[in-house]
Amino acid sequence: MNWWRTDATHDPALTCWVEGAQGHADFPIQNLPFGLFSPADGGPRAGVAIGEHILDLTALAEGGLLPAAVAVACREVPLNALLALAPADRRALRAALSGFLSDESRRATVEPALHAAGDCALHLPVRVGDYTDFYVGIHHATNIGRLFRPENPLLPNYKHVPIGYHGRASSIRPSGTPLVRPKGQVKGPADEAPAYRPTARLDYELELGVWIGAGNALGTPVPIAEAARHIGGFCLLNDWSARDFQAWEYQPLGPFLAKNFHSSVSPWIVTPEALAPFRIAQPPRPDGDPKPLSYLWDEADQSHGALALELVVLLETGRMRQAGLPPVRLSHGPASNMYWTVQQLVAHHSANGCNLAAGDLLGTGTISAPSRDGFGSLMELTVGGKEPLELGNGETRGFLEDGDTIILRATASAPGRVSIGFGECRATVLPAR
Amino acid sequence: MNWWRTDATHDPALTCWVEGAQGHADFPIQNLPFGLFSPADGGPRAGVAIGEHILDLTALAEGGLLPAAVAVACREVPLNALLALAPADRRALRAALSGFLSDESRRATVEPALHAAGDCALHLPVRVGDYTDFYVGIHHATNIGRLFRPENPLLPNYKHVPIGYHGRASSIRPSGTPLVRPKGQVKGPADEAPAYRPTARLDYELELGVWIGAGNALGTPVPIAEAARHIGGFCLLNDWSARDFQAWEYQPLGPFLAKNFHSSVSPWIVTPEALAPFRIAQPPRPDGDPKPLSYLWDEADQSHGALALELVVLLETGRMRQAGLPPVRLSHGPASNMYWTVQQLVAHHSANGCNLAAGDLLGTGTISAPSRDGFGSLMELTVGGKEPLELGNGETRGFLEDGDTIILRATASAPGRVSIGFGECRATVLPAR
Repeated sequence: MNWWRTDATHDPALTCWVEGAQGHADFPIQNLPFGLFSPADGGPRAGVAIGEHILDLTALAEGGLLPAAVAVACREVPLNALLALAPADRRALRAALSGFLSDESRRATVEPALHAAGDCALHLPVRVGDYTDFYVGIHHATNIGRLFRPENPLLPNYKHVPIGYHGRASSIRPSGTPLVRPKGQVKGPADEAPAYRPTARLDYELELGVWIGAGNALGTPVPIAEAARHIGGFCLLNDWSARDFQAWEYQPLGPFLAKNFHSSVSPWIVTPEALAPFRIAQPPRPDGDPKPLSYLWDEADQSHGALALELVVLLETGRMRQAGLPPVRLSHGPASNMYWTVQQLVAHHSANGCNLAAGDLLGTGTISAPSRDGFGSLMELTVGGKEPLELGNGETRGFLEDGDTIILRATASAPGRVSIGFGECRATVLPAR
Repeated sequence: MNWWRTDATHDPALTCWVEGAQGHADFPIQNLPFGLFSPADGGPRAGVAIGEHILDLTALAEGGLLPAAVAVACREVPLNALLALAPADRRALRAALSGFLSDESRRATVEPALHAAGDCALHLPVRVGDYTDFYVGIHHATNIGRLFRPENPLLPNYKHVPIGYHGRASSIRPSGTPLVRPKGQVKGPADEAPAYRPTARLDYELELGVWIGAGNALGTPVPIAEAARHIGGFCLLNDWSARDFQAWEYQPLGPFLAKNFHSSVSPWIVTPEALAPFRIAQPPRPDGDPKPLSYLWDEADQSHGALALELVVLLETGRMRQAGLPPVRLSHGPASNMYWTVQQLVAHHSANGCNLAAGDLLGTGTISAPSRDGFGSLMELTVGGKEPLELGNGETRGFLEDGDTIILRATASAPGRVSIGFGECRATVLPAR
C-alpha cells in the first residue's frame, strides 16, 4: 500500500530556508500540514504551516507554481476540495512544497508568499459535513463504564463493534475559540426534581480527529483494505462534555446536549503522507479477545495501521495565567491505546452503505492510557470529581472552572526520523451567560 | 404571536385558475409549499407545488414578480437561503403567490412558469446541515421500551427531557430514492458470535420532520417563546431502521449504523404559515406528570403549539404492484401523540447554546397512537416480528422485504378550512448488494 510510503520528503537531512523551521517541534519541513488562514490584510485562503510561518498556497497556485489539480482545489474555501484530493495529487503537492522550501534557489520566488503565523488568523479548515464520535479508547471506555455501570464497565459488544455515535457538526470550532459554560438539565440521584443550570461538571476529552478525504457513494461500503485511501488528514479534538447533563440525559439514545455545545479541533490538517514514517503495528489483541469479523480485518492494517503518536493534555488556570506560571500537564500517553485502527473506523462506519464525504470528521473517542498519568479526561483523573487533582500552585480541580484553558498537543516520533507535531488545540472556558 | 395568524391566503373561498388545483388533496392554493425541482429541460431551481403543477419561483423572480428578499434567496440552490427567510418575507411571498394563482387576470403572465409535476424531478430541497432525531412519540417510546427493557419501558428522564440524539445528514434522500437493504453486524441472544449480513429486520418509522429556518448563534439558547420563529417548515420523515443492528450496537451510546444508511423525506417544505389554521392546543399532560422546567414552558405554545395533522402509513409490496392492487394502510393517527411540541424541541436543542442553522432537520421520532391501528413502525405493529401482519392479499409481513414500498402521507384539517397535505414520502427497498 504505497499510501504509507516514506520518501525524500521525509529525509531527516532536508534543510529548510524558512527562519525557525529547522528543528521546529510541530512544523518542520517534514510535516507540511494544510489549513485555512487569513493574513493581516486579506481574506481566508489555503496555507501550509512551516515553522512559525504560513505559506500562502493560494498565492502559489495563482503564480502557477502548483500542480493543476491542487491549484483548482485551492480555489474552494473552506478547503473541502483540497481535503478531497487524491493521494497522488496530495503527494505531488507535498513534493513541490518540500522542494520550494528546501531549495535556497527558490527562496526569492516563494518568500513573498510567506506570512508570520502570529499575524494570521486560523479558521476551521473545512465545512464539516457530518461528525461522528467513536469510543475506541478501551481504557477510557472501561474507566467511564465503571463510573456509570460499576457492575458492567465494558458491554458485550465492545470488542466486536467499533462503538460510535453521531455528534454535532455545527458547533465544532477551531483552536482558540473560547467556549461558553453551557446550561442544561441536571438531576443528581439525591435531587427530587431536575433543574436547568450551568454545568457543574465541565470536562474535556482528549481525542484524535480523522478528516475524511475521498467519500463513498450511498449504499457502497468501503472495504477495510481501501479505508486508508479515504482518510484525508488528522487533527486533535477536544470533545467538551458536561458530565451532569450526560448522566441524566444519555439513556436510552446516547449523549446529546452533554456534548454538542462546543467541540474544539486543531486547525492544521496533518496529512497521511506526513505520518507515513510513524506508522506502527496495531498492538495485538489480548489473549481471549475475539478476532474481528472479516469486514474489519486486514493484515496490512494490523501491521502498519496504527500511529506512533504521543498525546498530551495541559491545563492553564486563570490564576496560573495571572501569576505567569506555565500550564501544568494533566496527562500524556500514546495513541496506540485505541482498540481499533482509524481504518477500521472508516470500514465500520460505511459497512451499512452509509456515505462519507470530504470534510466529515471522525473522532476516536477519548484516548486514555491504562495508568492514571495517561487518563484523557477529568472524569477519569478525579474519579468522577471525588478525588480532585492538586495542580501544584495550591489550586485543585474536580472539574473545569471558568477561565481554565485546556491545551491538547500531539507529537509523532520514530527512530531516525524528524518528529512532527499537530500544533495546539486550545480553548478557554467562559462563564455561563 | 402573529406567526400563527390566519389571513386571506387561507380563505376557503379562494379559487385557483391552475387546472386540478381546486380540491387537490395535498396542494390546493391554501398550501403553497416550496421545494427544489428540475423541469424536463433545465437544472434545479426553486418551485412551489400547486395541484399537479409546479410553479417556477426562479422564473418569477427573474421576471421581477417577487419581493426583493425572496428573489435574492431564490438564487441559492439548494434552497437554504429560501428556508432562512424571515417570517415576514415568507408571508410576503405567500401573499404574492396566492394573488397570482387566484387572479385570472395574472394568468397570462404566470402560466409560462408552470410545469406539469409529472415532467419534473424533485430533489432534496436544502443542503442538510445537522440532523437530529427526537423521541417524542410517547406511545412509541413506551412500545419500543417494552421490547428492549420490559421492566422499564419509559426511563425516569422521559417526561422531563425531550430525548433526542444526532443522526446522519449525508444519507437523507428525497422521496422516490430507493434504499439498499443494509448489511451490518448482528448477534441474536442465541448466537454464539456476531455475523456481518443483510438486515433481517428492516423497518420504517413514521415521523414528522421540522426544517430549521432562522438559526441561532453558538452559545445563545432560543427562548421557548421565540422557538416558532426559528421553524422554516415541515416535512414527512421515514427513519428507516435495521432492528437487528440496533439491538446489538445501541448500548451505551445509542443508535448508529442501525439508522444512518438512509432516511427519506418528503420533498415539499410545508410552511408554518400554511399550517396556521391547523394549530391546536397541545393535549394536557396526564395527571401526575411533572410540569416541564420553565425553559420548556410557554402558555401560548401549550394553547396553540400543536398541529391537527393526520398521519398515514401505506405499504405496497412487489406482489401488489404486479397484481395492480392498491397499497394497504398499515396505520393512521394524529400528530398530537407527541409528548412535546416542536417548539419545545427547538428550545431544548439550543438550551445549552447549541447553534441551529437553516437546513438543519429535526425529526420528532416515531409518532404512534395508543392503539395498534396507529402504531408507527413494524417493530410495534408485529411486536418485534412475533406477530406478522396479514396484508389481505395472502401475504404477511414481520419486517420489510425487498421490493416493498413504504408511503407516508399527512393531511392537516380543521373545521371550515380547506385541508392541505404534505405530498408523499415514498421509497422502495432494493436487495442488499
